[in-house]
Amino acid sequence: MDRKAKYVYFFGGGQAEGSGQMKDLLGGKGAGLAEMTNLGLPVPPGFTITTEACRIFYENGEQVPDFIWQEVEAHLRRLEEVSGKRFGDSSNPLLVSVRSGAKFSMPGMMDTILNLGMNDAVAEGLARLTGDRRFAMDTYRRFLQMFGSIALGIPKERFHEALEDLKRRRGVRQDVELTADDLAELVETFKAIIQQATGAPFPQDPRAQLRAAVTAVFRSWNNPRAQYYRKIHGIPDDLGTACSVVMMVYGNIGEDSGTGVGFTRNPATGEKVLYGEFLPNAQGEDVVAGIRTPLPLQELERRLPDVYAQLRDIAEKLERHYRDVQDFEFTVERGRLYMLQTRVGKRTAQAAVRIAVDMVREGLIRPEEAVLRVDPAQVEQLLHPVIDPAVRDQHRPVAQGLPASPGAASGRVVFTADEAVARAENGEVVLLVREETTPDDIHGMHRAVGILTSRGGMTSHAAVVARGMGKPCVVGCEALRIDPRRRELRIGSTVLREGDWLTIDGSTGEVFVGQLPTVEPRISDEFATLLEWADQFRKLGVRANADTPRDAEVAYRFGAQGIGLCRTEHMFFGEDRLPHMVRMIMAATPEERRAALNELLRFQVEDFVGIFRAMQGYPVTIRLLDPPLHEFLPKREELIQEIAELKFRLTRTDDLKAMDALLKALHEKERLLARVNQLYEFNPMLGHRGVRLVITYPEIVEMQTRAIIEAAIRVKRQGVRVAPEIMVPLVSTDTELEQVRRIIEATAERVMEEQGVRVLYQIGTMIEVPRACLVADRIAAYAEFFSFGTNDLTQMTFGFSRDDINKFLPDYLEKKILPADPFQTLDTEGVGELIRIAIRKGRSARGNLKIGICGEHGGDPASVAFCHEVGMNYVSCSPYRVPVARLAAAQAALRTQAVAAEYAASV
Amino acid sequence: MDRKAKYVYFFGGGQAEGSGQMKDLLGGKGAGLAEMTNLGLPVPPGFTITTEACRIFYENGEQVPDFIWQEVEAHLRRLEEVSGKRFGDSSNPLLVSVRSGAKFSMPGMMDTILNLGMNDAVAEGLARLTGDRRFAMDTYRRFLQMFGSIALGIPKERFHEALEDLKRRRGVRQDVELTADDLAELVETFKAIIQQATGAPFPQDPRAQLRAAVTAVFRSWNNPRAQYYRKIHGIPDDLGTACSVVMMVYGNIGEDSGTGVGFTRNPATGEKVLYGEFLPNAQGEDVVAGIRTPLPLQELERRLPDVYAQLRDIAEKLERHYRDVQDFEFTVERGRLYMLQTRVGKRTAQAAVRIAVDMVREGLIRPEEAVLRVDPAQVEQLLHPVIDPAVRDQHRPVAQGLPASPGAASGRVVFTADEAVARAENGEVVLLVREETTPDDIHGMHRAVGILTSRGGMTSHAAVVARGMGKPCVVGCEALRIDPRRRELRIGSTVLREGDWLTIDGSTGEVFVGQLPTVEPRISDEFATLLEWADQFRKLGVRANADTPRDAEVAYRFGAQGIGLCRTEHMFFGEDRLPHMVRMIMAATPEERRAALNELLRFQVEDFVGIFRAMQGYPVTIRLLDPPLHEFLPKREELIQEIAELKFRLTRTDDLKAMDALLKALHEKERLLARVNQLYEFNPMLGHRGVRLVITYPEIVEMQTRAIIEAAIRVKRQGVRVAPEIMVPLVSTDTELEQVRRIIEATAERVMEEQGVRVLYQIGTMIEVPRACLVADRIAAYAEFFSFGTNDLTQMTFGFSRDDINKFLPDYLEKKILPADPFQTLDTEGVGELIRIAIRKGRSARGNLKIGICGEHGGDPASVAFCHEVGMNYVSCSPYRVPVARLAAAQAALRTQAVAAEYAASV
Repeated sequence: MDRKAKYVYFFGGGQAEGSGQMKDLLGGKGAGLAEMTNLGLPVPPGFTITTEACRIFYENGEQVPDFIWQEVEAHLRRLEEVSGKRFGDSSNPLLVSVRSGAKFSMPGMMDTILNLGMNDAVAEGLARLTGDRRFAMDTYRRFLQMFGSIALGIPKERFHEALEDLKRRRGVRQDVELTADDLAELVETFKAIIQQATGAPFPQDPRAQLRAAVTAVFRSWNNPRAQYYRKIHGIPDDLGTACSVVMMVYGNIGEDSGTGVGFTRNPATGEKVLYGEFLPNAQGEDVVAGIRTPLPLQELERRLPDVYAQLRDIAEKLERHYRDVQDFEFTVERGRLYMLQTRVGKRTAQAAVRIAVDMVREGLIRPEEAVLRVDPAQVEQLLHPVIDPAVRDQHRPVAQGLPASPGAASGRVVFTADEAVARAENGEVVLLVREETTPDDIHGMHRAVGILTSRGGMTSHAAVVARGMGKPCVVGCEALRIDPRRRELRIGSTVLREGDWLTIDGSTGEVFVGQLPTVEPRISDEFATLLEWADQFRKLGVRANADTPRDAEVAYRFGAQGIGLCRTEHMFFGEDRLPHMVRMIMAATPEERRAALNELLRFQVEDFVGIFRAMQGYPVTIRLLDPPLHEFLPKREELIQEIAELKFRLTRTDDLKAMDALLKALHEKERLLARVNQLYEFNPMLGHRGVRLVITYPEIVEMQTRAIIEAAIRVKRQGVRVAPEIMVPLVSTDTELEQVRRIIEATAERVMEEQGVRVLYQIGTMIEVPRACLVADRIAAYAEFFSFGTNDLTQMTFGFSRDDINKFLPDYLEKKILPADPFQTLDTEGVGELIRIAIRKGRSARGNLKIGICGEHGGDPASVAFCHEVGMNYVSCSPYRVPVARLAAAQAALRTQAVAAEYAASV
Repeated sequence: MDRKAKYVYFFGGGQAEGSGQMKDLLGGKGAGLAEMTNLGLPVPPGFTITTEACRIFYENGEQVPDFIWQEVEAHLRRLEEVSGKRFGDSSNPLLVSVRSGAKFSMPGMMDTILNLGMNDAVAEGLARLTGDRRFAMDTYRRFLQMFGSIALGIPKERFHEALEDLKRRRGVRQDVELTADDLAELVETFKAIIQQATGAPFPQDPRAQLRAAVTAVFRSWNNPRAQYYRKIHGIPDDLGTACSVVMMVYGNIGEDSGTGVGFTRNPATGEKVLYGEFLPNAQGEDVVAGIRTPLPLQELERRLPDVYAQLRDIAEKLERHYRDVQDFEFTVERGRLYMLQTRVGKRTAQAAVRIAVDMVREGLIRPEEAVLRVDPAQVEQLLHPVIDPAVRDQHRPVAQGLPASPGAASGRVVFTADEAVARAENGEVVLLVREETTPDDIHGMHRAVGILTSRGGMTSHAAVVARGMGKPCVVGCEALRIDPRRRELRIGSTVLREGDWLTIDGSTGEVFVGQLPTVEPRISDEFATLLEWADQFRKLGVRANADTPRDAEVAYRFGAQGIGLCRTEHMFFGEDRLPHMVRMIMAATPEERRAALNELLRFQVEDFVGIFRAMQGYPVTIRLLDPPLHEFLPKREELIQEIAELKFRLTRTDDLKAMDALLKALHEKERLLARVNQLYEFNPMLGHRGVRLVITYPEIVEMQTRAIIEAAIRVKRQGVRVAPEIMVPLVSTDTELEQVRRIIEATAERVMEEQGVRVLYQIGTMIEVPRACLVADRIAAYAEFFSFGTNDLTQMTFGFSRDDINKFLPDYLEKKILPADPFQTLDTEGVGELIRIAIRKGRSARGNLKIGICGEHGGDPASVAFCHEVGMNYVSCSPYRVPVARLAAAQAALRTQAVAAEYAASV
């Protein structure tokens, strides 16, 4: 501890020793008061004891050393001079508030004491001075209560019970019904409580009160709720709090007094209009207590037009000074305005966008700043349908699950994927409700407007697929009791049947009974402007993951510059396609397999034609078939049950024809079961899938390549530009890609010769196996592009199964073993290191290698920043997150620029 | 092509232009002939056309250019001079063999033509000269047959049919029954065949014959079988073959002639005695044809003592010259010995060891060379029991499976693990026969002498566990039809019942009915000497993986310097332990869990005491519980079936007491099923296991730490030194290890205080997750040692599930996508790169970090070499492979030294 250092900073009389830059030292509140003083705003005078003093307090065994007390005393004398009042002077008493305030706002976590300086003599003097004895006694008893509990550590209940006891004796119900004499009696009771609890009389000396209060504020930095708050918000424990001692002003002495809070602009809409609330003849506490309803700020204009005009000027000044929307507190004491606090105002996503764009137009900030000011994670809410805010408050959710995929959706309940398809084809709007989903449900998920499950976590099948599809989804909603056989859903005492309406909000996890109206997302003009600016600054391309022409259209509309991942397996789950897929899997010879694949070919061609057309010449990266084949076959347990049923029915029939049919069906099911058993895998995630399928069944890649090239040629003939990129998944050695590349090239060549049209296409690979990163230089010899599949790469790098991680992830997050779910935010330390290695090695072998990312991380702002830093060419994310990624990419570029500029300036 | 270069090398007359070093250019055969000539050995003269000429032949459109022919002509003239015979001279004809011979031996793959130079005149001359017209005609027709088929490309069958036709007409069955006139007729027939097939008469000019023969030899380099051989043996296609033209000598002209092959020492036992076979009055072909049985070489001593003495001297000279055992071919022509070929002799493992050690004692080689000469992979066969060679040939295997874990074992067939335990406790020797094994079978596998399964591959559960236990095992034996309910095993028409004897050979995959005697492995004195030398040279420590005191004793006996991996989970599968484990898993509270763990504690202590004692103060690395908990519970399908049965029985009973018991059992099974369902994982390999278990259930690590420290203290009190190392598995972040380390340290401290004794112990981690390698510096902050778990590391780096890889691995090996099974031989390119990163980062943070490997690769010679190169401290492998690892480690160290010395000499 440095005895020569300055530990106390004064503000008042139009000048402050500190400034708004000194949040580290003065806390947010102290810095704001200093800055406002320097701006010439009417701030009650006072001084701030620094966070450094707080740290010394702890180092010194929770004692404030004498040399700091001496500095406090000196500043107290200066405060008496500036205010013209004196501590303990009954004819002109100085009363102060003693407030905590750290670098990062921790609302309500630490302590504050008001009206300090009060004692018997001062109370009488105040009664005389204000002509309001009740006010004086009420102020005194409030101070005793606060000081007693906070500074002296006496349980709050003791004071509260004495107050209630008095009210009971007086036969009144409200505090305000107590008279001045009642309150004077209460003052005596409180003093007796203090005497009894501490063994010493209540300290009448204001200086002694101040010492106890400052000590209490410093100590409150380490109270359990503050510690907990810091832990969950990641605020370091060694920052300490500052302590501001400020002259009291009173909004509760008459109708020309009052207190209020305001925003320089509307924080909900962003509209440029002074916005806030005002409570006449009241103190801040009364606003918080919520007993009286505050008036809109405009009421102040009517009642005290001069004060309102002054406030408006101040708001203007604050905004111009801080160059951002401010949230402020003020008090009017007998017609005189005092500013008590200012800070950057929180706002909704909609307001954030509008304010940023407006401020550029007003010349307050530059477009770069506007882009940097809007939180990409926050704007995501602007991109999904929401429950109409006009009716939202009239409904209470019946259940709460995990918000797995944002957006709101209403639909008729269905319990099976098949039912979803059937009703959708009849034009009904359906919501799929399942215990959990599997790849078998994909066709139903496609037709549903939303998905609700009773099991699974944020990375369950339902959650991942729904996010991929951009469909609202709530998972793990444990209150649901689903009975698919009875086609019934129970939530508590509510029973819903198939076809009943249900509404989910995938952004909050809430579930509502009935059909709530939703509002469709629209990119506002301001948002469009902001995104245009973002596009000028960003270096990263932004593509979308889309498996259907419809998704591709959404992506294009949201500004995607291509498809980064088109998964072809979902195309095979359709009702009209799955039978061919099954036949392909059951084929005994390559010829049979080719015949089945031939049937699938025409579907694939249609799919690709639609997507190519939607993307208008932007590149479309198509991933070859990836999942293990058993995902396309019925489940083992289902087959066993079906076989048992068939056998049972066989024993019950005498009809030869029926027996024949049953035997045939039985044979078919048993064949299926045998194949399912054969394909069974202990760890399907690490099994026979991706490029490994293609190595064993080259017919698959031949069919898919043919479909891609035929579709490209058809679109090209229609005069639309087309840029297909064929992506081989799960590559771990260069030899895999080398061999598959040969098949693709030969097939493409054959198709182009047949058709007499050439199209340009590229061949590349998904980098999603750790080994691929380590030998990326060798792989790059056969790849024109890399696309990081960070979902699988994260699974293998950590050895975490995404389907199973919920067994221990909650523990890992709670015990701070992991800073975040690595499937949501890229692990830049481990997975990121592999990515860096792969990029370095890949580009060393092929200078113009195109590199992107197509895992779910492509839409996560922190992960997008990482992608920019390591020099990728593009990110790809779900269509609805494209604007988020555009903004995040621009911010990453601007921040890198800023760092570079800072560095350049420093050398 | 360089016209000035030398393309033909002469040998003969006691001198050769080439030497034994020139295998690249002259092929193995040409180099051997040159070297023997230079040694002054009796070699028929001749010359070798180089591999370079062969390459030019291919560059030149499969034509030998004239300037090479000119060089050949010149050398032919020189051969005529040296031999004193002339091409085509009927009074003294020169006949030659034209032989292929590449750098790497490709036995039988390429072509050779004998007796070239023969024509009508020469045949008559030869008849006169030898006085043996039949010999002359037989030689002529053989030449026509060979030349016609090989040099002229006429199908062999044409000549063969003509021969058979003649025999039919003469009414004889054997070639030897044909007379000289018969053969003369055959010569005419063969010439007619040639005329008819080629449209030209057979070339009487020996020089024309030579051109055609050389061309044919060069062309045979690229025949399909040679190409295939090179592909599977990894021999480059562009080496080409040399072509040696050598004067013919004849072992088939009288009883003072003959031919033979020999070894300078016994290649089966290594005994220092001339060893080989001799066939009087015969040519090399006759030996190969196998019509006559050759005599032992000692017979030559009796028949031609001078020749035998000369041969013995030559063998001695060859061995001293080559400093290794030689395998040679010779011919005796009328009492005169000719050496035709020499090369390093192949030998059994036993012989390899004995020869290497004997040669050091004889002063022929240094101990370093002896160590380098013995193939570690080969000596593994000396370390396992084998079927007694004395009776082996009298039995035929009834089935063939995959050789999953080496060694032979006989036992009585059992079909369940429980039966294995029951019979073993009655003193019976049992062999466990299952469709496949699971962790539930471990207790039975422990009690069986061997394991046989009908399913699964080299990396199936049975294979991996058996290798770990060092037990013979045959897997994937598809001929088995196992019916566990009828306790019956069918192999073809053979039916075996429980208790019948069966014998397996895990080194060959063979299965025999009955009890075949086996011979226990013993480390011979020579092998012990060799291993002592190896220990002097190696830098790597060698430890063993052992889970039981018995395994630890074997390991100690085989020279292990510690236990590198003691898996604790196998300790919980015992009959007396599993119930407590299940209770632990079913516990609803930490207290219940602790109580169950407390029961397990005393077993763990006993296990560790036994292992510590066996290792006599060497370090013992104990891995904390690793597998997912569901492995300890019954299988889901079994439970469902049991529940169905209980329910069925409930409907059939009226007895209240019985119902009560049934209901209780039902409740218990349903609770178990619920827990099994809860613990179900899609990818257990990437699931809730290893350190992740410990994070959620810290009680487990507390119990295990307590057991380790209590055991260590008990052993220390007995006066035995002890060095426990506690290893945390599956770590992927430093924070995991940090938190677990804290628990281990606190628990150990508590135990040591309770007991009043301190023991030194270390805490380290298994590095088996890719991420751990990437952040090894951070992890090293909390680890005194790293042990690479290369099984899991390989799984995650490739994304290969070891349990499922057999679905595509055969394809991958066949298509050369992978050079080897990465679970057998470490992938030094990908997995090895992660290991290099981890070692570099780990040592950067902790200079004295101890680093080892404990995957199955620790016993694979190629992988051991890698471990040496990257600077590990030790390898750990199954006890039976410890000698293999000791030898491999020494070889790696010696090779590194040699490379360093070479480099030092070159600069």
